[in-house]
Parts: sequence; C-alpha cells; structure tokens
Amino acid sequence: MTARTAQAYAEFLELTKEIFYLQSAAGILGWDQQTMMPPGAAPLRGRQSSTLTGIIHDRLTSSRLAELIGELRENAAALDPNAQVNAREMQRVTERARKIPRDLAQRISETQILSQQSWIEAKQKSDFDLFAPWLEKMLALRREEADAVGYEESRLDALLEDYEPYATASQISEVFSALRPPLVELVQAIRESGVTPRREIVRRRFPPERQKEFGLWAIRKFGFDFNIGRVDVSAHPMTVGNTTDVRLTTRFDEEYLPMSLFGLVHEAGHGMYEQGFEVDHQGTPRAMAVSLGIHESQSRMWENLVARSLSFWKYAFPYLQAFFPEQTRDVSLEEWYAAVNDVRPSLIRVEADEVTYNLHVILRFEIEKELVEDRIKIADLPALWNQRFQDYLGIVPENDARGVLQDIHWSIGLVGYFPTYALGNLYAAQFFNTAQKEIPDLHERFAAGEFLTLREWLRTKIHAPGQTYRAGELVERVTGEPLDAKYLLTHLRQKFGSLYGNCC
Amino acid sequence: MTARTAQAYAEFLELTKEIFYLQSAAGILGWDQQTMMPPGAAPLRGRQSSTLTGIIHDRLTSSRLAELIGELRENAAALDPNAQVNAREMQRVTERARKIPRDLAQRISETQILSQQSWIEAKQKSDFDLFAPWLEKMLALRREEADAVGYEESRLDALLEDYEPYATASQISEVFSALRPPLVELVQAIRESGVTPRREIVRRRFPPERQKEFGLWAIRKFGFDFNIGRVDVSAHPMTVGNTTDVRLTTRFDEEYLPMSLFGLVHEAGHGMYEQGFEVDHQGTPRAMAVSLGIHESQSRMWENLVARSLSFWKYAFPYLQAFFPEQTRDVSLEEWYAAVNDVRPSLIRVEADEVTYNLHVILRFEIEKELVEDRIKIADLPALWNQRFQDYLGIVPENDARGVLQDIHWSIGLVGYFPTYALGNLYAAQFFNTAQKEIPDLHERFAAGEFLTLREWLRTKIHAPGQTYRAGELVERVTGEPLDAKYLLTHLRQKFGSLYGNCC
Repeated sequence: MTARTAQAYAEFLELTKEIFYLQSAAGILGWDQQTMMPPGAAPLRGRQSSTLTGIIHDRLTSSRLAELIGELRENAAALDPNAQVNAREMQRVTERARKIPRDLAQRISETQILSQQSWIEAKQKSDFDLFAPWLEKMLALRREEADAVGYEESRLDALLEDYEPYATASQISEVFSALRPPLVELVQAIRESGVTPRREIVRRRFPPERQKEFGLWAIRKFGFDFNIGRVDVSAHPMTVGNTTDVRLTTRFDEEYLPMSLFGLVHEAGHGMYEQGFEVDHQGTPRAMAVSLGIHESQSRMWENLVARSLSFWKYAFPYLQAFFPEQTRDVSLEEWYAAVNDVRPSLIRVEADEVTYNLHVILRFEIEKELVEDRIKIADLPALWNQRFQDYLGIVPENDARGVLQDIHWSIGLVGYFPTYALGNLYAAQFFNTAQKEIPDLHERFAAGEFLTLREWLRTKIHAPGQTYRAGELVERVTGEPLDAKYLLTHLRQKFGSLYGNCC
Repeated sequence: MTARTAQAYAEFLELTKEIFYLQSAAGILGWDQQTMMPPGAAPLRGRQSSTLTGIIHDRLTSSRLAELIGELRENAAALDPNAQVNAREMQRVTERARKIPRDLAQRISETQILSQQSWIEAKQKSDFDLFAPWLEKMLALRREEADAVGYEESRLDALLEDYEPYATASQISEVFSALRPPLVELVQAIRESGVTPRREIVRRRFPPERQKEFGLWAIRKFGFDFNIGRVDVSAHPMTVGNTTDVRLTTRFDEEYLPMSLFGLVHEAGHGMYEQGFEVDHQGTPRAMAVSLGIHESQSRMWENLVARSLSFWKYAFPYLQAFFPEQTRDVSLEEWYAAVNDVRPSLIRVEADEVTYNLHVILRFEIEKELVEDRIKIADLPALWNQRFQDYLGIVPENDARGVLQDIHWSIGLVGYFPTYALGNLYAAQFFNTAQKEIPDLHERFAAGEFLTLREWLRTKIHAPGQTYRAGELVERVTGEPLDAKYLLTHLRQKFGSLYGNCC
C-alpha cells in the first residue's frame, strides 16, 4: 500500500467507524424504546432518533467519504483483503444512500410512525380500510425510493438490496417456485398421516419466571455470551446490537411454553452471529452481517435444527422436568419432542411450525412483489390474501386481523424483507448439512449437552468472515455448492417422516 | 419581532434543540452504561459517547449558531421574554464552548476515563500515591481550561461557571465562612447534649425488594411521575434525563434502610425539578435547570425538609410498619424520627447527616480552591485533608480510602462542583421557609399524606420558569431577599434543638 493509499484508508476507517458508532448508539435508543423507556417519553425519543438519522444520512452521503472510497476502489489491488471488503461494501451502502434524497429519507421516516399507528388500530379493529390509505402512501414512498435507486428487472430488486444485497427477485422467485409444491405436498402428507401429537402438554401453565430461567439456561449452554449481551422482555422479540453489545428480547405466554423458549433461542442465534464477528474490525463491514438471510440462517438453525431436534431434547428433557416437575410428570421425551414439532396449517406466521412457515413467507413475497410492481390494487389485498391462503395452506383467516393485517412489516415499509426468512431456512439447512458432514458426531454431542463445537464451527466458517463474502459466495465456500432447496426439503422429509408415521 | 428576527429565531431554535436531542441521547447512553450495559461493551460505549461528544462540541461552536445568537442579542428588545432567555443562555454556553479548543475537550474526556480507573484502584488499595499523578494531570487540564475560558479573580470562577453559572468563588467563600463556625458549634452542642437516638433500629435487616417498594410508594406520593420517569439500581445513585424522560437510580444496603430511602427521595427531588419544566420549551434553556445549586435545593428539600421531617413520619410511620412489621414492632414514631436524624461526625460525605454534611462540603470547597489556584501540592493533600477533618469534625480518617480518596469528583475533573451541594441546602431552607409562610398548614398537609401542594408550589415558583432567572434572581423573586445562611441555621437549630434536649 502506498503512503497515500494508507492515509486515505485510515481516514476512510475513521469516517466509517464514526457512522457505526452513531448507528449503534441509535440502536441502543431503539432497544431502550422497546424495553425501558417510560411511555410519555415517546415524542422526545422520536426527535432524538430522527436527529441521529439525519446526521447518519449526512455522513453516509458526504462527498469526502465518497472521494476516499473512489480512491480506494481505484487502488483496490494495493489494499489488503479486509480493506478491500470494507471499501467495496461502503461503496455499495453510500452509493445507495446518495441516490436517496434526504427529503425522501425523512418523509419515509415520518410516515413510518403514522402508518404504524394506523396499522395498530386497524389490526385491533380488524378493519383493513383504516390501514389501506397508509399502506398506499408507504408503498408509494418505497416505489419512489426504488425508482431513485434504480433496478434492471423488478422494482423489488432495488428494495431487496437493503436486506439481501446482491440478490434479485427473479432468483428468489425461482428458489421459492421449486420449494412451494413439495412443501404443500408435505403438509398434506402430514395431515393425512393421521398422527397427532399430545398438543396440550406444551399448553399447560408455565410460570414466566421459570420459563425465563429455562430459556437462559439453554442459550447459555449454546454459547450466547452474557459478558457482551443481555436479555429483556419486549412486546416483539428482537436482537439489537453488534459484536460487544448484543441485546435479545423475548416475551412470555404463561400457557404456551414454545413461544418464549424457541423465540429466545431464535434471537440467541442472531445474537451469536453478531457476537462472532472479529472485534478488531468492529465498526466496519468486515465485522457486519452479510445479509438478513444469512442472519436468519443462524437464528433458524439454533431454533429448529438444534432446539427442536430429538438429540437436544435427549439432553434437555431431564432439565425441563427439573424446572417444571408438575407440568411434565406424565410426559415422555418422545411425546415432548413430538409436541414441539406439531405441524399443521395455521394462520399466524410467527406461530407457524417448521414446515408451514415457509409457505407463509412465500405467499407474502409473491404478494409484495406484485404490490410494488403495481400489479394489484390495495383494495383487493384482503381477498387476494385469503385466496392464496386457501391455495397454499388450505385454510382461510376468519378476519383480516389474523390475515393480511397480522404483520407489522409493510406498515413501516419493509417490503422485500419477508423472503429473507425463508432464505434463512434454506441457508440453515444447507449449512447444517455440511456441519454434520464435518462433525459426524454432532447429534451425539447435542445429546451430551455439548453445543460449543457447533458454535465454533459457525463462528469460524460464517461469523468471523463478516462481509468478506457475499451471501451466494459464502454458501458456496462453506458448503461447496450454490444454494439448493433440496437440503431443506430432505431435512423436513426425514424429520417429519419419522414423526408422522413415515408419511413422507 | 421583525420577519428577519423571527426567521433567525426559528433557525436558532432548530439548532439549539438538535443539540439538546444529541445531549439527551448521550444522557440515555450514560444511564444505560450505569444500569443496563453488559460489562464487555464498555470500550464500544466509550467510542459511541466520544463520537457524540465531538458532534455536540462541533454544533455548540458552529459559526452559524454564533452568528444567529449575535443577531438575536442585538435585537433582544424585539424578542419575547422566552426568546430572550434562550438567546442569553445559549450565548453563555456557546461562548464558553468556543473558548475551549476541541483538542482540549477531547484530552479532558480521554483523561477522565483513565483517571477514574486509577482512582478506583487507589481507593480499593487506599493508596493515594497511585492516584496522585492522575489527579495532577486532571487538575492541569482543568487549569488549562480555566485559563482558556478566562476569569477575573479566582481561577475557580471559570470552572464554577459550569455548575453554578454567574456565581464566584469569593461569593461562595463568604457564604461558607458565615456558615462554618455556627455549624461547628451546633455539632458540638449536639454531642454535648448527651442524647443518643436508638441507632440500631435503622440497621436491622430490611430486604431490598421491600425497601424498593417502600421507596417507590413514597416518591409516588410526593408526585414523581412514572409516565415520564422510571427507577433502577446502580452503584452510584443518580438522576438522568429531562422533562419527559427522567430516570432515577438508587442502591440498597440490606442492613441500613436510610441509604436507599433518602437516596431515592433525594433523586426524586432532582427528578421532579426536571419533570416540572414546561414541555413546550423542551430542548431550550427555558426548560432547563438554572444551576446545580438550585437542582440540589430540590433534592435536599425533599430528602431533608420533607422526608426527614416529623410530619412526614406521622403519616408514613404506619405504612413503614406495614411494610416492615418485624423490624419496627418495638419502635415508636418518635424513636424512628430520632434515628433517621442521628447527628454525629462521620467520615463519609454521602452518609453524613443534615448538619455535618455541610462541613464535609465546605472542607472540599476550600481545598479545591487552593488546588486549582496552585497554592497546595498534590503530595500534601492527604495530610491537609486529615488536618481539616480534625478541625471541622473532630475526627480523623483511619485511611485515605475513607478520607481524601472517598469521592469520585476530582478524578473526573469535577472541580468547583462540591459547593453546589451546600448551596443546595441553603437555597432549600430559604425556599422552604417561604413555602411555609405561603402555605401555613404545610406540615399538617404532610401529616395527612398530602404532598402535591408543595410540589405544585415548587413547580410554579421554581421549576416552570426554567432558566428565566439566574440563581440569585430566582432566590430574590421567590423569597423576597438574597441568599442568607440564617434560614438553614435557624432550621437546623430548631429541628435538632428539639431532638437533642434543647441543646441549641
């Protein structure tokens, strides 16, 4: 590296890290808002956050930073690999920010708050018409953003970039098209198997305090690091933070253990990804997530492939019985394992099982693609939702609150976000398949309460590289082949075949 | 107001409020650090905070803001009274900031962290020599700051301005000189009275959870608003926040009830001051504290003049007995009241009683004035401390940890801060004297559990005006005369005279 390039890189790093410090400070304010903030502080918090948003936007779009990035990209060959990653990814992020007028960014941020409020009311009253005009506005703003950013094929591509960089709607459509028919078949085969788990055993009275203790016990075992992390309660489970300050939240249903337990494990999967970046690169893309899909691969892996596995429960069931003796006295390990893997079509995505979950996501992706491409009318949305639900899951919501109004995402303009959930399942299954090959006794280790081997494998292969590789490259590097839906389908057929009388 | 001035004022307000939003966001990060943050997040938090500090400094010293302030001050006659206050106070704050080089501000901020660490270690080991070089550095930096800011008489004046604007060291010296001899006499008279309260009754086992409930019960009664406030636990009690987001912290000693109870009431006094500003002026000096001395007058009033009064305990003692039946079964109201007003010379300022507390403060003020004026050597500090302690309180610390090393303040460069604690007691006594005149049945109201009359009186007279009046003006407006130590002395003589056999 020439002295000039080294100097440019040093200044670039300083500006890049300052943006991260501001973003992560804003993240703490967001976490505080959901967990700690007194209710009357909301208007002030809105102003604090939008002040920070403005400053972050100014810095992301500063001409000095663009100039430095240009210089580094021109001399990319002279940079070390980490510096190359940082220059490349900051170029992507800042170029996108520079295409979005500050005014548009602010209108989106302001509309989000009002639109979300209208969604809350509409959902409470199950009245789609209350929400329709705000959804219209929000979508118009996101279309405006997509048009400002530019795209080649689908307008959704420009929005996807925020969540799953370098992916396109047509790639995702292709993957989902291959996934949907076998999933629909699988759900049908399970229904026709005639096997029904003892569902009521997970719906007994589980005191929230004990639920929390059991959940903390589990994620500590998995390797979530409390020296650089914590767990709180919020209305919507989430993970906030990065590298050395990672905060999970969960919530409790006193009469349904799986919600908090698997919810917390899910968030811990996200959290361990963030904790696994190399702290020396903190504040730069080199120590940040590749994409939401890769993020979700970590959360879904711990939630479904570990915590919903028979080998995990071989280890954990005696502990569960110690935490909840009365609730589990008449329950066997096999019955418990079957009950936490109860598969049946249901209305609510976040409560869906491992199989039907993906159908919920595919349905949303198809609809949001049509919405953003202006191919369907907002007014037709509820009917369309219900029709697709019938086609994919064989049931129809009894009202819009439990149908098209159930998710917060579109109300705050998160369009193109849903597919990352199913991509996460696909990535997870493919990664896990490789992990099992490279650690042949992985399930024996789980059954013996040893999970750190998996965490270390994930850390080395997936966490530590940060954004060194793009999502597609990472999958190929780790598993030796491109993303393929067969790994998820094989996993589901094997697991649920053996649970549901060799149905599939 | 001309259109041009109105426009200048609008822009001024926008810049002023943005600074406040950044400062209050930094305040939340500071609160989080003391209450919630995982330990391993400390280095990241340091960088987040110093990034914000830099941005705040840049904005306080921006030439555009200075230009607008200049324009507003030139046209002050055309401004409404609120705008006049805001322009005047922002001028004071920004002119000070502009005199301090960014580099010096950053050196101070960096040295604070290291110096505080050395103080923690020195205190743990009771080894002043470990701390001496850092205190030397910290004082040198603050002297540099004082010299950059400028002063007429004492270098301490330039530092006082941060905490007690418009006050001078010589004014404070004069007040303290009048206060010290009668206080020393009073302490002696109490000691010679031969009366001793049943000290052990406040040192029984009080479970922290119950202590917290009782404390929350009390401050809710006093009028602390939980819709815009909350209470947590931290190593050092503090109040963070403003107007619509005010957070108190407390700590518990399982075997000493007064610490958490009066500590929490003290912070609630600070908190009610902040909650009492007019929310329409949020983010401007018009809705900010006059000075730390005035702030402290509110905390000390609720702590000592309300919660340590006989009339409060007439109301609260039955509740105390309901919360702690076993601990208070053999205790009478009068015994309890005497025990929470136990006066005797002690080593630790934060545990000192209402009378001796002021001597702890005067001693520190005298020493820090000499330190900053370069009239004593750091190496002589422990001996000097112990000598003064002997002179003022008649006892000598057994080691430096419980002597000169006990307070955090000097380690982080807070020089000129201590006198605001005693000023607070003086202001409080004088304000309270007026409140009693204007609400003659004030103590009867306390005895009946009615505290909102006092809170409303304080809100109207002291909180709502924000920085409309300078501290001296405020005292004259509210009480009809300048600050006078006689109110505190009269209060102490009456209260402790009747508690200690008409000793004084």
